[in-house]
Amino acid sequence: MTFQRSIYLTTIPIPEAVAAAKEALDRERLIRREVIPSHEALGRVTAGPIFSRYSSPTFHSAAMDGVAVNAETSFTAREGRPLELKLETDYRPVNTGHAMPEGTNAVIMIEQVVQVDDRTIAIEAPTFPWQHVRRIGEDIVATELLLPQNHRITPFDVGALLSAGIWEVEVWERVRIAFIPTGDEVLDFTTRPEPRPGQVVESNSQVFKALGESWGCVVSRTPPVRDELDALTKAVGKALEDAHIVVIGAGSSAGTKDFTRTVMETHGRILVHGIAAMPGKPSLLGEAGGKLLVGAPGYPVSAVICFEELVRPLAAWMGRHDPGTRPKVQVELTRKTPSKLGVQEFMRLAIGRVGAKWVATPLARGAGMITTLTKAQGIARIPMHSEGVEAGALLEAELLVLEAEMERTIVCVGSHDNTLDLLTNELMGLAEPFRLTSTHVGSMGGLTALRNGAAHLAGCHLFDPETADYNFPFLDKYLPGLDLLVINLAIRHQGLITAKGNPKGIRGVEDLARPDLTFINRQRGAGTRILLDHHLKQADIAPDSVKGYDKEEYTHMAVAVNVLSGAADCGLGIFAAAKALNLDFVPLARERYDLLIPRQFADDPKIATILKLIRSEALQAKIRDLGGYDTDLTGKEMTPELGLG
Amino acid sequence: MTFQRSIYLTTIPIPEAVAAAKEALDRERLIRREVIPSHEALGRVTAGPIFSRYSSPTFHSAAMDGVAVNAETSFTAREGRPLELKLETDYRPVNTGHAMPEGTNAVIMIEQVVQVDDRTIAIEAPTFPWQHVRRIGEDIVATELLLPQNHRITPFDVGALLSAGIWEVEVWERVRIAFIPTGDEVLDFTTRPEPRPGQVVESNSQVFKALGESWGCVVSRTPPVRDELDALTKAVGKALEDAHIVVIGAGSSAGTKDFTRTVMETHGRILVHGIAAMPGKPSLLGEAGGKLLVGAPGYPVSAVICFEELVRPLAAWMGRHDPGTRPKVQVELTRKTPSKLGVQEFMRLAIGRVGAKWVATPLARGAGMITTLTKAQGIARIPMHSEGVEAGALLEAELLVLEAEMERTIVCVGSHDNTLDLLTNELMGLAEPFRLTSTHVGSMGGLTALRNGAAHLAGCHLFDPETADYNFPFLDKYLPGLDLLVINLAIRHQGLITAKGNPKGIRGVEDLARPDLTFINRQRGAGTRILLDHHLKQADIAPDSVKGYDKEEYTHMAVAVNVLSGAADCGLGIFAAAKALNLDFVPLARERYDLLIPRQFADDPKIATILKLIRSEALQAKIRDLGGYDTDLTGKEMTPELGLG
Repeated sequence: MTFQRSIYLTTIPIPEAVAAAKEALDRERLIRREVIPSHEALGRVTAGPIFSRYSSPTFHSAAMDGVAVNAETSFTAREGRPLELKLETDYRPVNTGHAMPEGTNAVIMIEQVVQVDDRTIAIEAPTFPWQHVRRIGEDIVATELLLPQNHRITPFDVGALLSAGIWEVEVWERVRIAFIPTGDEVLDFTTRPEPRPGQVVESNSQVFKALGESWGCVVSRTPPVRDELDALTKAVGKALEDAHIVVIGAGSSAGTKDFTRTVMETHGRILVHGIAAMPGKPSLLGEAGGKLLVGAPGYPVSAVICFEELVRPLAAWMGRHDPGTRPKVQVELTRKTPSKLGVQEFMRLAIGRVGAKWVATPLARGAGMITTLTKAQGIARIPMHSEGVEAGALLEAELLVLEAEMERTIVCVGSHDNTLDLLTNELMGLAEPFRLTSTHVGSMGGLTALRNGAAHLAGCHLFDPETADYNFPFLDKYLPGLDLLVINLAIRHQGLITAKGNPKGIRGVEDLARPDLTFINRQRGAGTRILLDHHLKQADIAPDSVKGYDKEEYTHMAVAVNVLSGAADCGLGIFAAAKALNLDFVPLARERYDLLIPRQFADDPKIATILKLIRSEALQAKIRDLGGYDTDLTGKEMTPELGLG
Repeated sequence: MTFQRSIYLTTIPIPEAVAAAKEALDRERLIRREVIPSHEALGRVTAGPIFSRYSSPTFHSAAMDGVAVNAETSFTAREGRPLELKLETDYRPVNTGHAMPEGTNAVIMIEQVVQVDDRTIAIEAPTFPWQHVRRIGEDIVATELLLPQNHRITPFDVGALLSAGIWEVEVWERVRIAFIPTGDEVLDFTTRPEPRPGQVVESNSQVFKALGESWGCVVSRTPPVRDELDALTKAVGKALEDAHIVVIGAGSSAGTKDFTRTVMETHGRILVHGIAAMPGKPSLLGEAGGKLLVGAPGYPVSAVICFEELVRPLAAWMGRHDPGTRPKVQVELTRKTPSKLGVQEFMRLAIGRVGAKWVATPLARGAGMITTLTKAQGIARIPMHSEGVEAGALLEAELLVLEAEMERTIVCVGSHDNTLDLLTNELMGLAEPFRLTSTHVGSMGGLTALRNGAAHLAGCHLFDPETADYNFPFLDKYLPGLDLLVINLAIRHQGLITAKGNPKGIRGVEDLARPDLTFINRQRGAGTRILLDHHLKQADIAPDSVKGYDKEEYTHMAVAVNVLSGAADCGLGIFAAAKALNLDFVPLARERYDLLIPRQFADDPKIATILKLIRSEALQAKIRDLGGYDTDLTGKEMTPELGLG
């Protein structure tokens, strides 16, 4: 076979791609006007100016509860020289909102009125004309411009429209978008499929639907279309009958089965093939009969960039409203991050306020990882001309969560443990919930984060063979002078995770050099890897004799999944990970998993809350229920040379 | 009659009111769990932790289009020393997303492959294990915590849920709110009523519905209930059957027909009567069977404060999510604004960026004016302990519009003219639309705004009797040294607006002292008032001989409405205002209405756009179509002593 693929050689910046599409599209012809009831018009965009029919109020009315008078009759009233007024002749009781009785032009508040008898009151201060009176048209004047054209209707506008007697409004119809997932390997989520290797559950359509509806669009979806030119051509043709925008999901990369470009050219023409963005590069834009065609990448993060950066501004432009922007904060990047020259990179960030500043830890960069978006609090754009960002640099981040939520976020950077997920969930169940973001960079990575002021706490389980102590020898060495509170979260069991039934008969670390075994390792700096190295050394096994020693994973669960799938025969990890996937576990050691907390944060309500939670018997019982943990030390402050207690 | 009213003597701060309600309510019992499809779960809140069922990917898969190899076979490849690989033996073609074939662990990108023949390729660089391979669980690991409890589901979460094989999620049911409008004077908007004096169209329910739905609640509404104790008691009882929160609209002030408190006490108990807020003071909170009762004020702005400050946080708390916050900007207040001690005041602000700073002009403060919310770009909270804010002070404003929209806002402060509404609408129709906010404070107020750097432009029509010139004599006096571009917008006709048919036979200014005539004046500083004073002086008429001289309105249309309603017999105003309300017009003078623009803004794209628009024949034709305008000078730069040209 030979390779004949449509490789995109020139990519263009996003703003140019959007401009090219605006140039080619015909929104005047596409987007029609429609008349809808005003009280259902929230978020819709006016298709012409709206003038009020009624004034509001339509009459001079009392603005307070009290008595309506002609102000002139009150002029002689003074403190200590009360003036008596007679019902009907001089005053008329009114409530807020009442029309002012004929001949009156001021209201005296009820609080300033003394009742003398049934028909007589006394006042001790004069009033002046129009005091506490809402005059005709004070709020809205009939015939005046209430809303201009191309204005997006707010909740308050709905109130103003009804007050002004506008029962119906002419608005632009909603922009209709059809999403067509494609690919033989793509499974329809509505069938609740069980994916086999090579298959994936289609989910981009629903991310897109959620986004599109939040922009005010109507989004429809077809079941996945197989990689057949005719089928896709037909599906796009059908979608174009009604939709203003047709998005073809996946198939826009340079794969051999890439029909998207061909189909777009059958119905119309290509405008853009490839944008200077990462993720998102293999996005396609085209035009057919004045409508927009989009070829969206298949990877979820690439797809999101395509949706948000290309489709969103174009749909907003068609619908005559602002595309909307996310609030921004300035964040300090916690570690040096390279970026590719010539593309705008969208970096997902875990953000929290540590001390006085917002700190941001970059998450993984894979375009295939939707969880980098679910876990991120923000996104930074690294410009095209940049080769990367230094640690400590200030970046502008667009927020994916509310700022108030970020203020309640506890930033945990370091080693991963399943008890952190337990904590995360429990913290969200409190009356005043807190969010725990944990970025898994290993125990040593956690120390670095603490040194850089980039975390509230770090999970750490660094064993020092010389002293048989945990963490403290490393703190002395790497974080001298930093006053830390060291709180044990749990003692956990580490061991070799093997396939169910341990078919290869793995008994311990001494088997790892066996040529018939493939190992899966943890990343450099992980406490578990240091533990492994210690045991290898004790067993006198050279690391390079362990097959798979250089294959790294970042979490216990990822190690276990490798074993479950057969990609590896064993890996070192915690019992909980083996149990969760129903794998076998060969115990190797117990170790202390501590939380390191700069003492300056000890009084922070967030930290106080987490400590209180850790010290509760309820949480400790839940930790034990996970299996593979002891909680003898949980919640206690650790001191040097304590070891396992 | 006597006054027996429930006057709220003690009001409490908003946070205390919210805390009191949380204390009394029973969300554990009220808000139930429900299971819904994941792809319909956007914005819903998880009722428990969600663990993934599938890993994603579920297999090691190619991350690039290219060839899959065992990395070891590639190690000898070097630049200039190509290594040949054979199909099936050494390599297998793969596309992005494909499962890695057995025995392979790396992908070489298609761009780095040279096709030698049908079954042979050459590479010039080695690859390494797991290069361009997405490993099992890279994104999601089966059994891991995907989302914690009490987490609000985002578009990205929907994608993660489906990828993880979670087809259904357990969430908290939506908070259900019932709104019951009350009042004999209140008309049901669905009947498209024509309000008579004393009647108002009910609209708060729809503002509330729009707000509540944007918070994620389900909001229902009943038709207005009359001021009858039994009817209201019954309506509330019925609403409590299903809703978690019942809001009774209006009736919470100290009016004689105020049954709200009584009805709340019949069903439950009062928690809060009166909050230390303005607007919003007469808000009531109560509890019935663990559910929330709310007595909302009738005035639209008071009602909004009650909804947003009391109901929103409580509904969010019930639904276990963040109440949401608006983005904030720091703004400079353009004029001194007093505030009442002991209440938190919600000040509505027109905001725009003028030069380097955000400037904010306070809008009218009436609680009855919904348009202060539709016209505002932001709201500032003046704290309880403050007696007011000085001009130039910095305030934090919560934004009601997108910041991007504010960046496109032209701030106009000064005299009002209907041509400004025309401009406002036309600017919104441009391919790159601009928003014009015009605050009507009269010509002199406009000069002050320009002096304070508080506006991009000011509408001004100040006639100087001594020189018979417009504006320039005032600029020399009040704005010396400020380099202004003075552009004529129109020459307009001012005259006495009278009832249709001019029943009182008003011929001109000489009639204004007639005892049978009531006049309606414009506010101090208004160019129209200066014009009136000039004509009165020429006619030798003392202002205090004009009945109604001290009754002020702020716009031409408001003057016309006073005449239409019979509140006044005539007032001085522009022809357009008389025409709009089908009133008669006795011409008095032609005058120049100019826009004053600091020359430093002349190159600002916003100002350049407005100037281009004013100079277009299309706009000038629309100005003439209004009637009462000449456009001989429109768009031209004015110079001193030009007069009317």
